[in-house]
Amino acid sequence: MSVSTAASVQDVCAPLPVLGCDVTVPLVTGGEVTYAALDYAASAPALQRVWDDVAAYAPYYGSVHRGAGYLSQLSTDLFENARATVAEFLDCRADDQVVFTRSTTDSLNLLAAALPAGCQVFVFETEHHASLLPWRDARVTYLDAPRTPGQAVETLERALADRDPYGPALVCVTGASNVTGELWPVRELAAAAHAHGARIVLDAAQLAPHYPVSVRDLDVDWVAFSGHKLYAPFGSGVLAGRADWLRAADPYLAGGGASRRVTRREDGGVDVEWHDSAARHEAGSPNVIGAYSIASACKALTEAGFDTLVARERQLIEKVRTGLADVPEVRILSLFGDDAPRVGVISFVVDGWNSSHFAAALSAEYGIGVRDGLFCAHPLVRTLLGGAPEAQGECGAPEAAPGEKSLNAIRVSFGAGTPDEHVDRFVAAVRELVTDGARWTYRTQDGRCVPAV
Amino acid sequence: MSVSTAASVQDVCAPLPVLGCDVTVPLVTGGEVTYAALDYAASAPALQRVWDDVAAYAPYYGSVHRGAGYLSQLSTDLFENARATVAEFLDCRADDQVVFTRSTTDSLNLLAAALPAGCQVFVFETEHHASLLPWRDARVTYLDAPRTPGQAVETLERALADRDPYGPALVCVTGASNVTGELWPVRELAAAAHAHGARIVLDAAQLAPHYPVSVRDLDVDWVAFSGHKLYAPFGSGVLAGRADWLRAADPYLAGGGASRRVTRREDGGVDVEWHDSAARHEAGSPNVIGAYSIASACKALTEAGFDTLVARERQLIEKVRTGLADVPEVRILSLFGDDAPRVGVISFVVDGWNSSHFAAALSAEYGIGVRDGLFCAHPLVRTLLGGAPEAQGECGAPEAAPGEKSLNAIRVSFGAGTPDEHVDRFVAAVRELVTDGARWTYRTQDGRCVPAV
Repeated sequence: MSVSTAASVQDVCAPLPVLGCDVTVPLVTGGEVTYAALDYAASAPALQRVWDDVAAYAPYYGSVHRGAGYLSQLSTDLFENARATVAEFLDCRADDQVVFTRSTTDSLNLLAAALPAGCQVFVFETEHHASLLPWRDARVTYLDAPRTPGQAVETLERALADRDPYGPALVCVTGASNVTGELWPVRELAAAAHAHGARIVLDAAQLAPHYPVSVRDLDVDWVAFSGHKLYAPFGSGVLAGRADWLRAADPYLAGGGASRRVTRREDGGVDVEWHDSAARHEAGSPNVIGAYSIASACKALTEAGFDTLVARERQLIEKVRTGLADVPEVRILSLFGDDAPRVGVISFVVDGWNSSHFAAALSAEYGIGVRDGLFCAHPLVRTLLGGAPEAQGECGAPEAAPGEKSLNAIRVSFGAGTPDEHVDRFVAAVRELVTDGARWTYRTQDGRCVPAV
Repeated sequence: MSVSTAASVQDVCAPLPVLGCDVTVPLVTGGEVTYAALDYAASAPALQRVWDDVAAYAPYYGSVHRGAGYLSQLSTDLFENARATVAEFLDCRADDQVVFTRSTTDSLNLLAAALPAGCQVFVFETEHHASLLPWRDARVTYLDAPRTPGQAVETLERALADRDPYGPALVCVTGASNVTGELWPVRELAAAAHAHGARIVLDAAQLAPHYPVSVRDLDVDWVAFSGHKLYAPFGSGVLAGRADWLRAADPYLAGGGASRRVTRREDGGVDVEWHDSAARHEAGSPNVIGAYSIASACKALTEAGFDTLVARERQLIEKVRTGLADVPEVRILSLFGDDAPRVGVISFVVDGWNSSHFAAALSAEYGIGVRDGLFCAHPLVRTLLGGAPEAQGECGAPEAAPGEKSLNAIRVSFGAGTPDEHVDRFVAAVRELVTDGARWTYRTQDGRCVPAV
């Protein structure tokens, strides 16, 4: 492997430079090739701008909050300003809170811990696990997969109207599917929720990196997203929205930073007075670099302009869809059909191929990084695959459990740093693999296909 | 402010180069001076080695776990190898689990969520809030502050023996106080806990950066620490230790990564099969850079050798204690007395001074960053201050609430990157401030002292 300088990175990455665009990786068939990172939906590379900002700040890193020193005050300002930047990026209401978490999963677990007593939760079975599973202590209604955006709204309205008892309710919905890339009718779902006395949280993990998200315009109560999918992979995420449930809830973590005053009682116990601000749910030393990196990414995306980013991404999506359209063995997974608007996330299966085998060949023979599996959205992928095992080829090892390997798909995903060449190479590689087969031999190891060496 | 190159950093930082050692900050009295970061106990600067490792890895960042691409596999290896490095650093038992969290606070909240039913918790009132407060769902016994290490052991033994009912119990104890820097008799407390059928978790947030921690030798059941105090401020922490309670507990966060298989039931519900490994408590995309940075710090500290680091730190501690000893207005806070072994964390009050005022003057007039307040250990600091307000001077603003400002202390802390000059400057500044007073005027803003400008 090798990596060249920042200057050359900017030559090959478009429209926004990202780290790693000129990293080369070895091919099992010999030689090296620049790595095509087409797994943005799992985790995106850092924007060069984000990295530069973090690198420039790193020598000035200091303890936040009660530190008296110059760098502590600078770091505190940076951290609190990051909140303001995120609020602006999400077009939050004036009294919304921005809580820094560690990821979308963490954000939704925080909200789950802050539900009022008796709150019912409504969630489509099509959600990925981060938004499907956190509602452990609530009564959850899982809604069947809709086949049109309109059907999603109808399904939700019916469920909310029928709920018994008619108390507090929360709807959790993804903005863009991490499997199909399809956009969900968030504004309409929010209107339906509110019409039926429910609140709504938008899981924007896959939406925020690709489309502008306006809390006011969509009229959602909360938004959750992750830094690492927003080109800022430094361990932070965000939950932003209504302060009332968050203020009324027990602190998410108990510890310093969340506590305003702790006193020993006469009877030997301990009394705690907690903060009412976002700090209530941010116990422990804040991840300043994580928060700052998210703010940096928000600024970079805003400055690049989502009009430009969306138009560019649409070209790449079309390139993939057109390129795969005349390969009859390839079947793209979709809930809402070909014409549904989507982000740069496309999942598919290839007739006659084990998905893990196909993904391994894309990596080992073409230097292309995609993902195979169920994408932490098991019920959705099974629904899209029709529930039945696909006819798939052998990985080449008799120890592969047929049940395990037959229910997977392949996902290709991209974004603001993806050059045309990566997508072109991917399309050409799919055609070549389908036509000519893999050139190398693969074997099963730990349930996955790897090149036999 | 300015920052020069990495090469010059190495000239001034000792024994291990850290970022920021040659950052200069403006003085309110005119001119600039290199910043003396003496708030390591709150958060330490990154080791140059840690930064270099992160920077070298950043272009190779990729999604971990099911990614099929080369960089995904490299990142997965890096993440899983980081676990092994941490296990080695802590001298863990072969079957211990290493869970990556976001901080010590998070680690102890995770353990609190994993307590078996009916578990009683025993914790000294002297703990900082991260170890004092997480045990919200347990029956907690707060133990009075001991005045000798032996008294700590006796107090714990008595409380454990007297517990009713005699069921599962956990002792949580700090290794080194974040207020006094004093070492606690961890091995003896662990023996006492085990003798009475209890388990013990070591809060090593302040210990691990300064002293070697051996899980086997201390015979503790779990250890928690934070990356950001271990020269790796990238949003990760660690909980390492016994797997049984962790495996038996509900997943800390519910989401992808923690779930092995999710299926929709015939009745509309959802069944989840969770992982048994550390992944069970690590839902969401892992913070690879955070985990890798901790591993890098573990290696750097091990390679430098704790013998060297401890000897060096002892010199700095002596410098501070000797330097302050003949300033009668300065009173160092201590539980165990002058001769107790300690890390480089020293808290004190200055007769006639408001601590916030004193800390503000150290920063604004000398470029020295310390901390003032109660250090997220309110009961301990109040005990050390005798519970009564200190006689303190005015900050210069009538709106300062006398009750708020009179119960604070000042803390100076340092570590592997602290040059002699920082400590020398601190001692000289304390003497000068006590003798001559502040040269500038300060006012109260948001409950704190700041230079009046």
